[in-house]
Amino acid sequence: MCGVFGIFNSKTPAEDTFYGLYSLQHRGQEAAGIVVADYNKAKKKTLFKQHKGMGLVSEVFREETIFETLGGYAAIGHNRYSTTGSSKSTNNIQPFSLTYRSGSLAIAHNGNLTNSRALRRELTELGVIFQASSDTEIIPHLAARSREKEPLHQIYDALRQVQGAYSMVILANNQMIAARDPYGFRPLALGKKIDPLTGELSYIVASETCAFDIIQAEYIRDIEPGEILLIDHLAVTNENPTSIYLPPSKRKARCIFEYVYFARPDSFIFKHSVDKVRRNLGKNLARESTIEQQPEKKEITVVSVPDSSNTAALGFVRESNKLNKPARFEHGLIRNHYVGRTFIQPGIHSRDIKVRSKYNIVRGVLTERPIILIDDSIVRGTTAKMLIKLIREADPEAIHLHISSPPITNPCFYGMDFPTKRQLLTHMFETTGNEEEEIEKIREYIGVDSLKYLSMQGLLNSVPSFENETCSYCTACFSGDYPIQVNEATTDKEEND
Amino acid sequence: MCGVFGIFNSKTPAEDTFYGLYSLQHRGQEAAGIVVADYNKAKKKTLFKQHKGMGLVSEVFREETIFETLGGYAAIGHNRYSTTGSSKSTNNIQPFSLTYRSGSLAIAHNGNLTNSRALRRELTELGVIFQASSDTEIIPHLAARSREKEPLHQIYDALRQVQGAYSMVILANNQMIAARDPYGFRPLALGKKIDPLTGELSYIVASETCAFDIIQAEYIRDIEPGEILLIDHLAVTNENPTSIYLPPSKRKARCIFEYVYFARPDSFIFKHSVDKVRRNLGKNLARESTIEQQPEKKEITVVSVPDSSNTAALGFVRESNKLNKPARFEHGLIRNHYVGRTFIQPGIHSRDIKVRSKYNIVRGVLTERPIILIDDSIVRGTTAKMLIKLIREADPEAIHLHISSPPITNPCFYGMDFPTKRQLLTHMFETTGNEEEEIEKIREYIGVDSLKYLSMQGLLNSVPSFENETCSYCTACFSGDYPIQVNEATTDKEEND
Amino acid sequence: MCGVFGIFNSKTPAEDTFYGLYSLQHRGQEAAGIVVADYNKAKKKTLFKQHKGMGLVSEVFREETIFETLGGYAAIGHNRYSTTGSSKSTNNIQPFSLTYRSGSLAIAHNGNLTNSRALRRELTELGVIFQASSDTEIIPHLAARSREKEPLHQIYDALRQVQGAYSMVILANNQMIAARDPYGFRPLALGKKIDPLTGELSYIVASETCAFDIIQAEYIRDIEPGEILLIDHLAVTNENPTSIYLPPSKRKARCIFEYVYFARPDSFIFKHSVDKVRRNLGKNLARESTIEQQPEKKEITVVSVPDSSNTAALGFVRESNKLNKPARFEHGLIRNHYVGRTFIQPGIHSRDIKVRSKYNIVRGVLTERPIILIDDSIVRGTTAKMLIKLIREADPEAIHLHISSPPITNPCFYGMDFPTKRQLLTHMFETTGNEEEEIEKIREYIGVDSLKYLSMQGLLNSVPSFENETCSYCTACFSGDYPIQVNEATTDKEEND
Amino acid sequence: MCGVFGIFNSKTPAEDTFYGLYSLQHRGQEAAGIVVADYNKAKKKTLFKQHKGMGLVSEVFREETIFETLGGYAAIGHNRYSTTGSSKSTNNIQPFSLTYRSGSLAIAHNGNLTNSRALRRELTELGVIFQASSDTEIIPHLAARSREKEPLHQIYDALRQVQGAYSMVILANNQMIAARDPYGFRPLALGKKIDPLTGELSYIVASETCAFDIIQAEYIRDIEPGEILLIDHLAVTNENPTSIYLPPSKRKARCIFEYVYFARPDSFIFKHSVDKVRRNLGKNLARESTIEQQPEKKEITVVSVPDSSNTAALGFVRESNKLNKPARFEHGLIRNHYVGRTFIQPGIHSRDIKVRSKYNIVRGVLTERPIILIDDSIVRGTTAKMLIKLIREADPEAIHLHISSPPITNPCFYGMDFPTKRQLLTHMFETTGNEEEEIEKIREYIGVDSLKYLSMQGLLNSVPSFENETCSYCTACFSGDYPIQVNEATTDKEEND
Repeated sequence: MCGVFGIFNSKTPAEDTFYGLYSLQHRGQEAAGIVVADYNKAKKKTLFKQHKGMGLVSEVFREETIFETLGGYAAIGHNRYSTTGSSKSTNNIQPFSLTYRSGSLAIAHNGNLTNSRALRRELTELGVIFQASSDTEIIPHLAARSREKEPLHQIYDALRQVQGAYSMVILANNQMIAARDPYGFRPLALGKKIDPLTGELSYIVASETCAFDIIQAEYIRDIEPGEILLIDHLAVTNENPTSIYLPPSKRKARCIFEYVYFARPDSFIFKHSVDKVRRNLGKNLARESTIEQQPEKKEITVVSVPDSSNTAALGFVRESNKLNKPARFEHGLIRNHYVGRTFIQPGIHSRDIKVRSKYNIVRGVLTERPIILIDDSIVRGTTAKMLIKLIREADPEAIHLHISSPPITNPCFYGMDFPTKRQLLTHMFETTGNEEEEIEKIREYIGVDSLKYLSMQGLLNSVPSFENETCSYCTACFSGDYPIQVNEATTDKEEND
Repeated sequence: MCGVFGIFNSKTPAEDTFYGLYSLQHRGQEAAGIVVADYNKAKKKTLFKQHKGMGLVSEVFREETIFETLGGYAAIGHNRYSTTGSSKSTNNIQPFSLTYRSGSLAIAHNGNLTNSRALRRELTELGVIFQASSDTEIIPHLAARSREKEPLHQIYDALRQVQGAYSMVILANNQMIAARDPYGFRPLALGKKIDPLTGELSYIVASETCAFDIIQAEYIRDIEPGEILLIDHLAVTNENPTSIYLPPSKRKARCIFEYVYFARPDSFIFKHSVDKVRRNLGKNLARESTIEQQPEKKEITVVSVPDSSNTAALGFVRESNKLNKPARFEHGLIRNHYVGRTFIQPGIHSRDIKVRSKYNIVRGVLTERPIILIDDSIVRGTTAKMLIKLIREADPEAIHLHISSPPITNPCFYGMDFPTKRQLLTHMFETTGNEEEEIEKIREYIGVDSLKYLSMQGLLNSVPSFENETCSYCTACFSGDYPIQVNEATTDKEEND
Repeated sequence: MCGVFGIFNSKTPAEDTFYGLYSLQHRGQEAAGIVVADYNKAKKKTLFKQHKGMGLVSEVFREETIFETLGGYAAIGHNRYSTTGSSKSTNNIQPFSLTYRSGSLAIAHNGNLTNSRALRRELTELGVIFQASSDTEIIPHLAARSREKEPLHQIYDALRQVQGAYSMVILANNQMIAARDPYGFRPLALGKKIDPLTGELSYIVASETCAFDIIQAEYIRDIEPGEILLIDHLAVTNENPTSIYLPPSKRKARCIFEYVYFARPDSFIFKHSVDKVRRNLGKNLARESTIEQQPEKKEITVVSVPDSSNTAALGFVRESNKLNKPARFEHGLIRNHYVGRTFIQPGIHSRDIKVRSKYNIVRGVLTERPIILIDDSIVRGTTAKMLIKLIREADPEAIHLHISSPPITNPCFYGMDFPTKRQLLTHMFETTGNEEEEIEKIREYIGVDSLKYLSMQGLLNSVPSFENETCSYCTACFSGDYPIQVNEATTDKEEND
Repeated sequence: MCGVFGIFNSKTPAEDTFYGLYSLQHRGQEAAGIVVADYNKAKKKTLFKQHKGMGLVSEVFREETIFETLGGYAAIGHNRYSTTGSSKSTNNIQPFSLTYRSGSLAIAHNGNLTNSRALRRELTELGVIFQASSDTEIIPHLAARSREKEPLHQIYDALRQVQGAYSMVILANNQMIAARDPYGFRPLALGKKIDPLTGELSYIVASETCAFDIIQAEYIRDIEPGEILLIDHLAVTNENPTSIYLPPSKRKARCIFEYVYFARPDSFIFKHSVDKVRRNLGKNLARESTIEQQPEKKEITVVSVPDSSNTAALGFVRESNKLNKPARFEHGLIRNHYVGRTFIQPGIHSRDIKVRSKYNIVRGVLTERPIILIDDSIVRGTTAKMLIKLIREADPEAIHLHISSPPITNPCFYGMDFPTKRQLLTHMFETTGNEEEEIEKIREYIGVDSLKYLSMQGLLNSVPSFENETCSYCTACFSGDYPIQVNEATTDKEEND
């Protein structure tokens, strides 16, 4: 996963992009970069400048002097997710910038192409060289080989050939182009801002609307699945960016896991409030829950794993009480604010120091009480296991782990950085394939008194519905129902963007 | 304010102290240091080693190689609070270590002495030189001039001469000494840990019990007001540290603001759970609140300023509902996890980017609703003002700001880093001295629809009571009732530790 | 200018390359990188790993842990020269590594192509994208489009199409390839090393032989102009790397400025000792010098600008004395060892602090004496001017500046980072074109009593001659005689490698 | 060893001190610090500000923003030598700054006290605490206990009690004081500078005159042995600093090793040019040398270990030729400019990589020639041994090592950081005490064909003589003749400043 951001017609495009990327930091912590388009008077054309590096946005752009060299009128930026292996190379830091037949191009991409292997093979056969290991580089290669003259149509030609998930922002000479795949896997939103002093209009494109909030921009609408949007100075003057559209796909496939875990709760994605969806997840989980207060026993305490499950937990408690199943919300776990990327763990007293450094338990609200612990999902299960061990130190009466999504049973080929099938907790134990048996093994492994996942139906009931769509979401990680066929070769995937 | 930590008889004292300081990071972010006591076989005596620096614990001890040079059997550590002016000097980073008549001494100190000016004057008249500007240095000077032979009694002699607030941990050759002033202003707790492999016993002293939790140590008891505790190898063998006591003060004066804001909610201080006290503050605030749901209007939404006011807000909601004043708790503000000390703000789009970078609003739970915003206290009011402006963007029906403590009207001379009287929000406006009028001015300045502070009685009802004590808490910042007379000279205080 | 290094069949290729680059640091201080070839057992093929960054070799590879991730059996490395403008981008740090039709390729290049603009144009028309601004990227593009199957022949195909100066080392899957342009502009040498423990043979390629010395390798011979050398495991077994050859050029064009200034004196380049050539330059300068001791005056003192002109100065003095023109060599200027890349100059007391921070004068050997100051060349003249001002403080009787090469009158299009024609000191003054007049203007500007350049004939007499070659050297910067025609478009050159 | 610098009445005292320390960097590379005196208008008195850190001057003051906080009218600075053990602590970085009875004091000290143990013992008995392990801290303690009112007389009182070597600069409120011990062990010079714009006079004090040169100040005279000089605003107005004098010592004891190795050749110390003395050392070494060109053999080549022995080698060659012993000076060793403090040595191919990274050999001038290698001194012999091994790779006919000083046979108790007696090369071999036998053992160990040390008489003939002094130099390291009795306890010295 990654975060993308772009702004056109700003006096301070690099600074705006910095704040945008900062607010999208949760989408990728490994690397960050900004490419700025500036009009060079001497050369009478737009030139690109860039700054990129490994680390958090605030680390890569630690020195204010960097911004002095990044003046211009438009910029795009990218946050890269932490992945394993070859991606550690600085070659993979986005935006990629390059020159080609029609001038300069820079691209920031969130997603994963499913036919990248085949396309790479075809392109290399034609003599193309690849300098990074990510899918993204394929797109400018295809665009550069298009017979079209306008970057917009070159990009169109390129995107017609790729399959998979992508939301991207591109600088092409003096234009900004935003595109989203026809399935609409990843979010991408369009915003605008009126400069309070000059009245000048800026257009902004970002993975999530929280990036608009931080720079006080306004959400206009989503970039639609299959849309390729062009923003240039004319579009600013007319207040009317123009779009062309890729051939529609048979269905839509918005990533449902963005709502479950990935997006920030204060964002709107796919046109709807993430916070509201998470609340629904909690409500539906409450409806499905069988844990009830026992007569003569203490009230059930609902604790969330902060901060990602807070909203679901609140929804859970509210619905529970509505259903006459008394439960109280408590902050039983506190998240440490000082955990940073550079946190060392000298001596490693015990294997659980990592969880101990990140979370603290509030004994008073846990001790001798029946606890329902709400978490959004379980991937490998190692953190959950250690967290339960930590909570046990407060000596609760029981720990009932409730997950606000179904079990993750399949890898993602559309950009989410899940491990391979083998590493998923759901495949760790040898079972007869019976689901109940599997969940029992997981319960035992994690060490809780009971384990409850939200049902698939509960999940689907929680997310917004879209009119005139037979299918709106990709639920492949939970259901194995992959919207785009993925051939075998691709399944031992290594890289996501 | 500062955090102190000490451990005696550990195989990894520097690592333990690192984790202890890490968990006490909220008590001081400006600087950190560790002094280790190691037995030098060649010299047949204990020698001290140290590492200190400006910044967070994880920044000062960023490289694991540091720990390779810090082997030993005991260690003390210190987190320094960010203060203004001369304290920026590296000379002020604690623990202070020194040699004197009886050998080596290192000291880590949390508190503020009220007779430091007089003592400094007396000592300098006697030819003493001071290398730092903090109060702390006075104590080893006094100890070094004592006629006693044992460090424990030298420290006793020194502490009899100082007045004010202090909780401290000292390494004196092969002994560790912990001391707390007779008023008991600042917390200090004693813990122990049995090594799971060797069965060896370690004693630990820390400002808050959260430092015990992270290294899986156990809370034994508080260091009592006026207690000077000696831990050496004999104490370990006998499982019995010994204590001597300073002459008792007329009253006790535990800092009530530690409960209101400063301490971590998962800690026990002054023998009681901080979380529980904060919940009481919320409950009492609910009892005093006059904001009620209006007929035909939306339910009142209670939002806390995360994370410090979360618990009070929960207590508020629960009590409110008990009193049949319906209110719902919501996460209307989200705290950004990536705000670090090194956060730059290029371009400064607007004055509120700082608040915008730290908090996000969740529009859905705020829009068109009457909001009760719970915060623990207001010092200068600038952050509160900008936060309200941010929340206004979600267009709530009304914002009722409820503070879970009374107005801060007086500076602290016992270690809390409040500004001078003049800079306190309560003294910013010219009034006739009428309290209602003052609060109205503050309400207007901050820009809320109503402003409610917890009453002093409400505050006192929320904190634990101690038997046989006429007065247990220092409430000077709220009441002006200073437990220790502070002469004029000291009142234009510059330095706290 | 840049430095290149490669080693094949070593247990520690990254470490060897580090030392090699370290010894070639004078050839480029802006950036450094290493790419390692390692056999991956799981994937049963050679994979590349890399580390690159801006700064000195010792800065980029500051942490030893970097080397832990760079195990393998072969490696190439590159030092990049400090240039202006777009090259600051990390995109331009070499070696470039990439994947293409035939697998993996990495390239480290020293030189400058003269038909790069035309080739870029042609390639981009064909749909090629360029990610860096340097010439180097052209070569892998050409190789990737070759119909040949073997990397060696692909490289051959590529190099047949490029014109200009290049010495390069390439990793192509499990092979190392070294190539030098048919004119032989830049040096490139082949060496070998027998591991003292295992008896294993390593082959090494480097810009200068000083890189062999530091790792105790042995110089075998030069890579010949036009030679493309292949080293693989078979070549190691047979102790016989194989070569193919590019079509010969009409003449050779070894860069004479490498001997004058650029190469390290302890290196052998173009098969001959740099030290010896510099000594010859000094001798010939002495023969041409007209400065002689005046009767009844003090002996002439010869001072060199350390360290680059030391050898020439020694040669000058020796020859001078042979010719019965008494002169004594003195260390009148001392070079400061602590000047680093990160040297700041707060306050800037005066414009000459930079020269003052780098050189100190030894008054005793300068005062009241006639000085002959030997420097290797003058480019812009600013440093020389300030250095003379500094020497004047010692109050010498006279300063006669002798330059051990002719005036630089033309830009270099083959890799030397000279400024444009306009910025050269020789073109700064309006003259009638009369050379004597020009030199007088320069003398006046720099502020010396007399100024003497070595004649072109003196220069040519100083360098080694090669049998059967009509022309062996490129002297374009001094003579304007460009071995390869450079079309107008290229002359406003921006980039060198 | 250390370097000290002070400037009074400057508009840019911190910047001036930065450049002064930069030019004195050779006197200490471990740590650096600057203390500035600034007049605070609000408090109506001079306050001190400081910045200190571990590393080179250019590392400690890497950021220009540091200087923005260091405005004032006077400053002192200190370079600390790299020593072993406890000195690594930041507590030991000078200048020490402190407050005491009479105000503020800051001190920068070069030297070593011989009665520090006794004084520390006495002071600690009186209740004094020591925060650093260096001698320097003793002086302010003694000053603070003086009954005098004026800092100048307090310092006088303090210095009357200490014995040993010291040259120091002190800031005392609004005065600067410079002092040198009665023996005059360490150099200390007085300079002045007229601001070219304002005509304002600044006074400067520095360890060596090279610190005057860099800021274009002028050398006035030495601070005399036993002199305590006071510079304040009155002294500036009158152009007349005033002095008081310590009781004279029986003899003088200027450190002769400063001339041999330590000081910079372009400095004047003890009123004389270091370069000139080094040249004399070379001349006298030539007179004593028995190596002569053999008939029918190649001319003898004289090579110096750069840069410290360059001047001696030149003197040697000139004298040799005068004496009709033909010899030619050559740059046979080149010193690498890129060796920095942070140089890592991954992999450590061989034990001599350190010497290989620092020096390169120029084969052409060494091969098959008889070499006289000039070095200034041998301490432990490890570097010399490896350097010889490196030179042997060029296959010289013979290597005759000539040392321009006598064998070091005794430790220094006056500030030079020699190892203990046991670690000196001269004590490494068991001999009958016969000097010839000892030198033969050393020759064999280092691996040279012959080894020649300058005689003591040769040394004494090389240094300037002072009128009316029976004894002017300390030669203890060569002769064991210690000017100040050192009691046994002190002899296992640990710390120098």
